[in-house]
Amino acid sequence: MARIKKSPDVRTNELIDCAQRLFFEHGYENTTVNDVIREVGLSKGAFYHYFASKEALLEAVAARMARQSLDEMRPLLEDPSLDAVGRLNALFASSRRMKVDMAPQLKNTFDALFKPENIVLYHRIDEALTAVTLPFMTEILRRGQEEGSLDAPDPEAMALMLLNLRLGVAKVMHRALQQAEAGDVESAAAMLDSWMQSYGLAVERTLKLPEGSIQVTEPGFARAFLAA
Amino acid sequence: MARIKKSPDVRTNELIDCAQRLFFEHGYENTTVNDVIREVGLSKGAFYHYFASKEALLEAVAARMARQSLDEMRPLLEDPSLDAVGRLNALFASSRRMKVDMAPQLKNTFDALFKPENIVLYHRIDEALTAVTLPFMTEILRRGQEEGSLDAPDPEAMALMLLNLRLGVAKVMHRALQQAEAGDVESAAAMLDSWMQSYGLAVERTLKLPEGSIQVTEPGFARAFLAA
Repeated sequence: MARIKKSPDVRTNELIDCAQRLFFEHGYENTTVNDVIREVGLSKGAFYHYFASKEALLEAVAARMARQSLDEMRPLLEDPSLDAVGRLNALFASSRRMKVDMAPQLKNTFDALFKPENIVLYHRIDEALTAVTLPFMTEILRRGQEEGSLDAPDPEAMALMLLNLRLGVAKVMHRALQQAEAGDVESAAAMLDSWMQSYGLAVERTLKLPEGSIQVTEPGFARAFLAA
Repeated sequence: MARIKKSPDVRTNELIDCAQRLFFEHGYENTTVNDVIREVGLSKGAFYHYFASKEALLEAVAARMARQSLDEMRPLLEDPSLDAVGRLNALFASSRRMKVDMAPQLKNTFDALFKPENIVLYHRIDEALTAVTLPFMTEILRRGQEEGSLDAPDPEAMALMLLNLRLGVAKVMHRALQQAEAGDVESAAAMLDSWMQSYGLAVERTLKLPEGSIQVTEPGFARAFLAA
């Protein structure tokens, strides 16, 4: 059989694509390097030319997700028409759009991420996302502090507080999706709405912004998300 | 050799003690059931009479830590002289005392918990602690909302926000301990002080309390903690 020649970049991306899919489908603990190379059609020797281990593959999956997330956020910093509050609202708006667009996959993603055999996967991804998001959020707050549109005396510390506030929301969204799937869409939507409301309040208050200046959620979001 | 007869409770606690010590010393991933039974002097058959697996032992370690933490917190809820803000301050004060008292072990504990081979250990403990702390914190906020001493329209959601705010602090404390050990105590103390200050601000603001009503930190705490 003739070996198909592919450039190293293409191969690397192919391996990351495949690993990401298998990790989410079958769980990180349950996926082996052999599963990945069988799927991609590569020899073990060739695989180790690209990645030293399954852990290295996990790092690459997490790093690529972080890079993609940063690519989506970066234009916000460059838009001169926005102040810091506008940038935060634009971030929340784009994350809402993404959540509604991806709701069907998101259910599977959450189901996978919150499995016990995926604790390591979940936290590597979370760490990688935090590593790129923290400097980004710090820069938004630093500029906001400078222009006086919000109050964050230590921008980096406050940025971490905001990222931590966000952590609970993923679990609540997962719980709401499970409840909705079990048939109770109304009360799942009410629960999620109330949580998003509290999250928004906590963000506003932490930055000493007037009530109503941050729109983490919008009317109908929870229902649209759960019905998608 | 004569078998020493011990009551099941004593045995259970002995196994949990031993597992906890080995998990923290050698890492959760690097500890086997065989290591534990060798240390305790029990046969494999006898071990499985107490715990079905290493994971079950981990659950027991996490659950006992959570129970101990709850036992320490519970008297605060029963003290009729305190309002919600007083209860929160008492919680922070006792956690400060504990941190200074335990600083030497805490360094080792943090070193162990933040090792890659302990991600699972760390998150099981965090989950167990959250499971007992969330209802406790919710009850403090519910009463505070009722008596009007703070503002938490959805006490459970707000309680989770507070617990999430706390998450970053452990990592910062770990980083400060490492910096201090490398010799730079002054700048480690300054960094930790600034973070604790921001944490306190975020808690106050999230609950709409006047500035200065919550003492997460106190003058000299960071230095006392790092010098211990």
